[in-house]
Order: sequence, then structure tokens, then C-alpha cells
Amino acid sequence: MSATYWCELAWLGGDEPEAGVVLTLERDRFASVESGVADPPAGATTLPGLTLPGLANAHSHAFHRALRSRTHAGAGTFWTWREQMYALAGVLDPDRYHALARATFAEMALAGITVVGEFHYLHHGPDGAPYADANAMGWAVLSAAVQAGIRITLLDTCYLRGGFEAPLDSVQRRFADADVTAWARRTAALETRPTARIGAAAHSVRALGKASLEAVVDVARERAWVLHAHVSEQAAENEACLAAYGVTPTELLAQVGAPGMGFTAVHATHVTDRDVALLGRSCCCLCPTTERDLADGIGPARALRDAGATLALGTDSNAVIDILEEARAVELDERLISGERGRHTPADLLRAATSAGYESLGWPEGGRLEAGALADFTTLALDGVRLAGTAPADAIPAAMFAATAGDVRDVVVGGREVVRDGAHVDIDVAAELDAAIRAAWA
Amino acid sequence: MSATYWCELAWLGGDEPEAGVVLTLERDRFASVESGVADPPAGATTLPGLTLPGLANAHSHAFHRALRSRTHAGAGTFWTWREQMYALAGVLDPDRYHALARATFAEMALAGITVVGEFHYLHHGPDGAPYADANAMGWAVLSAAVQAGIRITLLDTCYLRGGFEAPLDSVQRRFADADVTAWARRTAALETRPTARIGAAAHSVRALGKASLEAVVDVARERAWVLHAHVSEQAAENEACLAAYGVTPTELLAQVGAPGMGFTAVHATHVTDRDVALLGRSCCCLCPTTERDLADGIGPARALRDAGATLALGTDSNAVIDILEEARAVELDERLISGERGRHTPADLLRAATSAGYESLGWPEGGRLEAGALADFTTLALDGVRLAGTAPADAIPAAMFAATAGDVRDVVVGGREVVRDGAHVDIDVAAELDAAIRAAWA
Repeated sequence: MSATYWCELAWLGGDEPEAGVVLTLERDRFASVESGVADPPAGATTLPGLTLPGLANAHSHAFHRALRSRTHAGAGTFWTWREQMYALAGVLDPDRYHALARATFAEMALAGITVVGEFHYLHHGPDGAPYADANAMGWAVLSAAVQAGIRITLLDTCYLRGGFEAPLDSVQRRFADADVTAWARRTAALETRPTARIGAAAHSVRALGKASLEAVVDVARERAWVLHAHVSEQAAENEACLAAYGVTPTELLAQVGAPGMGFTAVHATHVTDRDVALLGRSCCCLCPTTERDLADGIGPARALRDAGATLALGTDSNAVIDILEEARAVELDERLISGERGRHTPADLLRAATSAGYESLGWPEGGRLEAGALADFTTLALDGVRLAGTAPADAIPAAMFAATAGDVRDVVVGGREVVRDGAHVDIDVAAELDAAIRAAWA
Repeated sequence: MSATYWCELAWLGGDEPEAGVVLTLERDRFASVESGVADPPAGATTLPGLTLPGLANAHSHAFHRALRSRTHAGAGTFWTWREQMYALAGVLDPDRYHALARATFAEMALAGITVVGEFHYLHHGPDGAPYADANAMGWAVLSAAVQAGIRITLLDTCYLRGGFEAPLDSVQRRFADADVTAWARRTAALETRPTARIGAAAHSVRALGKASLEAVVDVARERAWVLHAHVSEQAAENEACLAAYGVTPTELLAQVGAPGMGFTAVHATHVTDRDVALLGRSCCCLCPTTERDLADGIGPARALRDAGATLALGTDSNAVIDILEEARAVELDERLISGERGRHTPADLLRAATSAGYESLGWPEGGRLEAGALADFTTLALDGVRLAGTAPADAIPAAMFAATAGDVRDVVVGGREVVRDGAHVDIDVAAELDAAIRAAWA
């Protein structure tokens, strides 16, 4: 199975896009990528606009999509928001979870997202008892991504307790395995698919503690899985960790060997200078639209990069599904507190939105338009009202600072067309979202 | 001329929308607004989704639209950005200015904006000599809005010098009248239209100085014009004002009597506690997407409201034209630095986006869906992917936190349909933007 696309403009990694780029596909990979081809070859599909590598969403909780518009207006803090989220977490079963995740992943496809890291912790029945297949919820979310046409890394999350000194509350029993051994046994039964891989997540230092954290790191290393963890999203988490162990969450993760082994720290908002240095061998996944919504604060993105960390991006709570918005927010939020522009170039931001996310999710062969890479790509229209007037040389800053998910026109994942002319090829996304969200709250 | 619309949902000012709202129009006003009507009356046009009062864009520099995608990637500060903006300001003539403003205002119409305050300072020829009609540029921008179908308040801007001690530079000569008397004489020739009004602007305290500022205030008061001024967008402006007069820009404006007379302070980013108190009888127009882009900082929106100020919103540099995005940014940016959610309710934000902006621009009879008010309204589709799943009771937070300009479906200004099913009724907006921006840079 082969196919040829001719892109009016495409980003091959530089500060400016290349014109006339021919993408030749063999099965799910690029066989060749050639630029400077003035006219479309015979039989090629023409892609007007700007073609990018597929966008990577490195941190998602798909079911939070049902909270959109229902929780933003609330007063209070992250912790009051969490109560509302738990009310939803308490009522989902595998069928409703699948329907909601399928529609949400299809919305991601429309936004140009070609791979998602689903930070999955909703494992067990409402009373905490495992389903007949203990991975019923995991399969529900994994197959949802396959049906929606995007890649997934199911980051199966180990969650053991409510906090350093806190037992599980009634909703958290759904999240928890008995111990790391039970988590490792359950997750050993998860199988990959051509577009689905498995990874590990430690929910947070507070939900595991040091010994269990170390055990999860060991399992991930043995299985060559990537490892993700929520890190210092809230100052309260730091204080609790300091009280329990005398070190920050990042220091605790460093003590158990997480950095340097395919580890991604999610958020890294409230980190010390020492934490920043320790994260220099890791990926840091920022989720700026969620961090705004939840009043988390602004993480030190530039300092993390200066320390050597790579940055990736996530839609997290899915109140917004727009990786372009996440990317520009990394730069714009930092401008607000630094008073300086240009902390990250558009190409820096685009790497975070593509190759860095792929690598964070255990797909290092994706996120780039080059021979041998996964044939995943996303084309933005440049002729809509938002981007009209863009000069070709400015197409990369246009994509990073002015485009939205609504400008995505075509999406291909592993050589398969998933979005064509702004519509999902298989799924009526708005209708399925509406039905799934109603069902979730029924 | 009369017409009747039946809105599935409409916002009449409360925390939740009303269902089944019948809008009856007589010429350019609402004759009646009735809610709870289950079925559309015979002959009524049905508006599915959520109908809002028309959105007010209280601070725009239309020509900056040609900078979109061209300046965001830059390093440096506000002041280096300004050099790029001046390069564009140096080359526009009335024809090119008109074409660019017409396309930009049409983009605003597509975004649901029904009234714009154009902070207009590009008055004279490239060498500073007046055009044969000294208001040629003003007429160009005013007629652009009329043709684009939206209301305008032409805020004709008095600009006299480059800074407290600085003469005009070569580009600034285009902005400057000889003195306030010359500005007052020139602007006396500006005439209103049914959808166009005139107001005054003092560019900034640095561009006028105290005596001239006071003279502009007097002219505005005599003519019953609203008065706008850029206030404390940059810390450097404060420092220069303190050095020149020993007071802050807001204190200087208070000394000459600006607050309490239809005055709008644009930005108010770097203001002291005393400034905040002084602004309590004014409107403050925040422009969050521009303030992010230019690394200005985050203004004290909640404190200004607590002091009694009303808030309005502006797209300013038009790097983004989306009042819904501006509205949510007021709340979300403040969450980032306060760690608290719910500083402004969705209804607070929606008032800023509608009635407060209308009042700031000298149209106090607009921005509300009520009998006697201007028949300006904007309908958001709730069935697109971003808003799918919204419960009717949550439609206001959905509009404020999840909708974008791309969700605007229908727009009516003064009883006239300007946008229908997401398309401008008269103008191919993307094509005109493309042509006008190319011509501006040619």
C-alpha cells in the first residue's frame, strides 16, 4: 500500500517551511520526503496550506471532556474542582467510558492530534472491586483511540492511596490497585496494537510514597515502558512531600532513579532551582490551558529547557482540545511574568507539539516528516479568516501564534486518512460527544 | 421595517440563559423581548444555539491586523515590537488603509463583534503633511466599518510628541497634529452616521503632557464625546511620568478631571493601589491577548472592579480577533497569579464583552437584549465539536470558557443581518484580508 502527497508548504524542522514537499508513503511510514518540487506528481493528493508532523497530546484524561463548561465557572481552588471531577469519575462504567473516550479522541483527531498519552487511572468498579476483566476500563479507552483513528499510549497509572497519610476515599477506590505487585500483574495483561502502546504512570508521589514509586520505576525499566507522573502541579503537594520525606517530589523521583529513563514529569509548575536541574534529563509535559483553568500557576518552561529538559504538551482536562493553543501558551504565559518576548521560538514550540511528544509517549520514530518516520501528519488551511494574509515564510509563527484547532483540514495517521476537509472520515464527532456526555451525566 | 427572531436560548443578563426568547425588531431597535415562548411564532426566523447581545470590541488598531504572524516570534520587548509596527504605519495611504480596515472589521463581524472602538492615530501623510481632506484617513476607517456592517466609534486620537522629552520621530509625524487646537479643529469636521459615532482619545500621557491632556479633556466634555487613553501598559511609561510630573499617569489623568466623564483607561496593567482607587469611576479596557503577546503583564482586573470600575475588552493589535478569548483571559490570567478561581463570574465577563463595551464607546443604548435597545445580537452554535454536550443551564460558562470566534453563526447589527450561517453576507473576508495585507506590504 503506497500513496503520494504533495504539500504546498511543509515543516521539515527549520525556522521556515519548505515549499513543494512530496511525501511518499509505504504502508504506515514515509518512504521519502522531498522538498522543492514545483508541481504535484501524477497521482499525488494535493494538500494546500501548511503540513506539519502529526501533533502529539502527551497528557490527557479523556473522561474530563464531560466536565467542559460545567466546572470553569466555579470559585475555589484545584481541590474544589477535583470534587466535581470525582463526581463524574464515580459514575462511569466501561461502556460509557468507551463512548466518551471515542468521541473525545475523535475531537482530538479533528484538532490535528495523531497520538495521545492517556493517563489512565479509572481502573475498577465503583466499589473498588475489579471488573471480570481487570483491564476492562483500559481496553475501553485503548479501543476508543483505535476506532477514532489516532495512536495511543495507554499510560496505566499506579494509584495506591489518597495522600501521604490519607487512606483512599470512596471514589479513589476505583483508581487503586492493592499494591505495585498487583498493578504490575494487571498491567502485564495489556497488549499493544499497531497504533497502541502501553506505558506506565505513577499518579503522583503522594499517591504512592517512596517504596512504591521505586517499585513502579523498576517495572517500567524492566518492560522498557515510558514512565509519566504528575509532579508539583500544586504547592500543597510539595509541602506534603517535604513533610513526609524532607525532599521535594522531584528530588524523591530522582532518588528512585526516574529521570533519565524515558521519564516525563507532567506540569512541573512549582519546582525549585534544584528540581529544574534534576529534570534536565527528563521530558516535562506542560498543560497550560488546564494550568490556567485550575489556577495552578506558570511553570518555568524556559529554565527547564536551559537545564536540558525537552518540553511536550498536553490537553490534560480537555476543557480545551487544541495543541496549537497549548503551544503558544507556553510562550505567552511566560511573557506575562518575565516581561520578555521570544523565550521560545516557533520552531521550539512546534517541536514540543510534535517530536518531543512522540518521544515522551514511546514513539520515537514519529513526529517528524522524514524518510522512515511514521506517516502521521496534519495540514492546516492558510486561507481561513484567521490565517489569511500569511506569507509563506511566516507560516510557522502563523501556525504557532494565530492558528486554532478549527484550521485543521486534513489528518493522516500511519498512512490512513482520518480527517478530510475538516471532517472525521468515520465519526460524527459532535453528535457522539453530545450523546456520550449526556449518557455520562444521566 | 420589522422582523421577528425566535432564539432557542438567549442571555438576558442572568447567570443562566432563558429558553425560547422572541426578539421583535422595529427598524434598528428591539420593540420587545419575551422569554419562555416554547415554539417559534409564525414568520419568525429561528436561531438555534445561544444568542447574546452583540459583542463590543472597545479597543482596536485595525491596521495592526497586517502584523499578524509577522511579529509574534520576535524576541525583545514591547518597544522592539513597536518598531515593526511603525514600519507598517509608515506605508499606508487612505486607500490601502480603507481596504485593510474593511477586511479587518469584516473579520470582527464574523467573530460576533457588532461595535468597534477604533483608536485612530494614523492621521496625516507620510511626511506629516495633512491630506487635502485632513480627515482622509479617518473617513477611510469610518466607511470601512459601515461597509463591513458593524458599528464604529472613531476615537480620533490626539498625539503631539514622541515622549515627555522626545520629539516626533519620522513615523510619528503621521500621528501628530500641531497642538490640541489643531486636533480639535480637524476633528470638529468629523460627522456621525447612523452606525458611526465620534469620540476622543488621548494617545497617552507621554504623547501629550499635562496641559494638552487637560485641553483634550475639555474638548471631549464640551462635545459630549467619550474619551479613551492608553494608561500604564508599560512600566517605562510610569517611570517617565513620575520623572516628569512626580505622579503616575492615572494620577495625572485624575488631576485633569478625566475619571468620571465617560473615560476609559486602556490596559491599566501597571497601576498602583492609589491608581486603582482613582479608576473606580472609569471604565478599564483590558486587551489580554495583546498584553500576553507584548509581554505587558497582567492587570489587576478584580481589584479594579472592586474599586467600582467597569471592565471592557479590546482586541487591540488584532493578532487575535476573538472577544470570547479576551473575556476568558481576564479570568484565566488572574487565576495564574492569584492561585484562585472564580475571580469573575461568566456573567461578569459577558457584561464586559457586551454592555460595558457599548457604554465605553458611547452607545449606552446597546449591548443588552431588551426592549428599546439597539437590535444588535450574535448567535453562537452549540452543536459544533467544541461546545457539543453543553447543557442549556451551562451555556453561559460554555460561551465564556469554551467557545471561540469560530462558533459564531449569525450576527445582526441594527436589525440588519451581517453574518448568516457563519459567512459574511457582503464580503469574502479571507480573500479581502489576503489582498489587503499583500497590498499593505507591497
